[in-house]
Amino acid sequence: MKTTYFTVGPAQLYPTYAEHMMHAIDEQIGSISHRSAKFREIYKHTDQQLRILMNIPETHAILFASSATEIWERMIQNTVQHKSCHFVSGAFGKKFCDFSNGLGKQTQIFTSKHGEGFEGITHYTIDDDAELICTTQNETSSGVQILPSDLIALKKKYPNKLLCTDIVSSAPYPNIDFTYVDSAFFSVQKAFGLPAGLGVWIVNEACINKSAMLGQCGVHNTLEQYAKNYESFETPSTPNTLGIYLLGKIAEDMNDHGLKHIRLMMEQRAATLYQITTQVLQPLVVDHAARSVSTIVFNSTRNAKEWNNILAPYGLVVASGYGKYKDEQIRVANFPAIEELAFTQLVKALEQH
Amino acid sequence: MKTTYFTVGPAQLYPTYAEHMMHAIDEQIGSISHRSAKFREIYKHTDQQLRILMNIPETHAILFASSATEIWERMIQNTVQHKSCHFVSGAFGKKFCDFSNGLGKQTQIFTSKHGEGFEGITHYTIDDDAELICTTQNETSSGVQILPSDLIALKKKYPNKLLCTDIVSSAPYPNIDFTYVDSAFFSVQKAFGLPAGLGVWIVNEACINKSAMLGQCGVHNTLEQYAKNYESFETPSTPNTLGIYLLGKIAEDMNDHGLKHIRLMMEQRAATLYQITTQVLQPLVVDHAARSVSTIVFNSTRNAKEWNNILAPYGLVVASGYGKYKDEQIRVANFPAIEELAFTQLVKALEQH
Repeated sequence: MKTTYFTVGPAQLYPTYAEHMMHAIDEQIGSISHRSAKFREIYKHTDQQLRILMNIPETHAILFASSATEIWERMIQNTVQHKSCHFVSGAFGKKFCDFSNGLGKQTQIFTSKHGEGFEGITHYTIDDDAELICTTQNETSSGVQILPSDLIALKKKYPNKLLCTDIVSSAPYPNIDFTYVDSAFFSVQKAFGLPAGLGVWIVNEACINKSAMLGQCGVHNTLEQYAKNYESFETPSTPNTLGIYLLGKIAEDMNDHGLKHIRLMMEQRAATLYQITTQVLQPLVVDHAARSVSTIVFNSTRNAKEWNNILAPYGLVVASGYGKYKDEQIRVANFPAIEELAFTQLVKALEQH
Repeated sequence: MKTTYFTVGPAQLYPTYAEHMMHAIDEQIGSISHRSAKFREIYKHTDQQLRILMNIPETHAILFASSATEIWERMIQNTVQHKSCHFVSGAFGKKFCDFSNGLGKQTQIFTSKHGEGFEGITHYTIDDDAELICTTQNETSSGVQILPSDLIALKKKYPNKLLCTDIVSSAPYPNIDFTYVDSAFFSVQKAFGLPAGLGVWIVNEACINKSAMLGQCGVHNTLEQYAKNYESFETPSTPNTLGIYLLGKIAEDMNDHGLKHIRLMMEQRAATLYQITTQVLQPLVVDHAARSVSTIVFNSTRNAKEWNNILAPYGLVVASGYGKYKDEQIRVANFPAIEELAFTQLVKALEQH
């Protein structure tokens, strides 16, 4: 029996993944040079499909790194001279902040209570000398989201600061208005339903200019090298070409299906999941506006291991709580790759046990 | 018609690649958590198979990064405080040195003439304060190799310095004696015949201890994090699990075949290639000891584009010279993935045209 992974990443693979992989084998994608016309076509195709899917304007470049974790590092290296400001609603936002400290930067940090977001986000006063505002649009550890409209409000209040947002476990769901977001990034092993090994970094000219102003911004995958190579749809060094190819194909499938429909399905399923309140399970995030649509966290008297024993006969797997919440919470991914039957079975099992 | 890629990486995929990929799809490898027992089994299997294949002793850990390019960066960050010393026989050795400079280190650099190696490598006097000796065992841009016995001699002369070697485009061919090599690293898209997206970093305790002594060695993929996670066959962040799985399978296939046989085949084929001397083609590297077995460079009055037009009817592709040698040299990979018929056809075509 095949397993359906409701884990929050690595996660369930997109239903068309295997078919695209077969084509990739057939077309010998793994052998082609990253300095060839064929590679540039693949990059261009993936770039175009992501632009359509996520409404990414020409003002932003789409770059490929190895993971979102690497992008945290590159983001700080390339755009922060002295200080970054962090809105932290969980372990991954905290790690992003730790990276900035580790790179010798000062940080200003706003931390929400576990399971809470930042109500009235514009009421937080960001230091004058903070250059980059780091937000986690979807925090995988706590299932807390920041509404895209709050990102707009933040940027409107601080137009002279760079604003970046981590959409690792929500992209392509959130409707980000890139007029107000200088950079966003994600990994493909979450809602895109691909194997891990590729990070996508969306950046505008303001980030690239900041990097140029700072001068030497590290040595590998600097924005200067990226920008230069991106002009001809290439990468600074040999990338995960197979991952880029597959991402383009999945983005195309999502465009064919229509993101509108995918979003609606995700919202309906999220509503169903958030309605689950039993003696065993209750949604962690109470504030509706702060509730992630793509990664849903439950307080649970049963840990993920016990749940997965119950779910095993149905071939379903959920994720444990993150870090210290490992045994008292579970996390359920609501990614587009999940098929209806498995979703219905999961809801039934969660409600009845 | 399928193409046979004699390019130096990305390169021809290993004949069993497609079969292993099918199994990976079947086993849903792309979905499993990097904190699961299944992942740890995969890591352990790949670790064991690489140890057998490349005779890697227990003194060395086997770590996974995104590429050898990333490992250049991490190697310098983690093991050099003030100065590194570089033996440069081509563009990639030079880039490794540039990375060290870019990270603010002093460098001592020995550069050979294009197409030449370092005869009497122990006669070079390395600065007392150089902490790390960086060598390129196989230089992909020039087809120059350093003999494994020269690495031993270097380490014997400088036992208190760390010695690392870039085996990106030769592993698993060279018989490295890890008693004398503190670190070696490679990418999988070369002689292992896999798609790009995974780098393998072999390091001993001396490197890890140096990193600990230095303290803060960057923020992502530091040796401290690696060493801690490696204890339980895990990685600091989500890795390219699919790549690790496939590498283990290919290493196992190579072990089944016997590296002895693979080496012999590569040596015989290299001898055949180096015998090609026509009005159009002559091997670049004259000194037999400096001749790479896995990546062979020819001076050519015809550029790679013209060669590939000639080779197209046979479904064969060779690589251009690197950088400024693009139009006057070609590079031919002699990797284990290449099948006999294609090899014979290539030799015939190169000799006759």
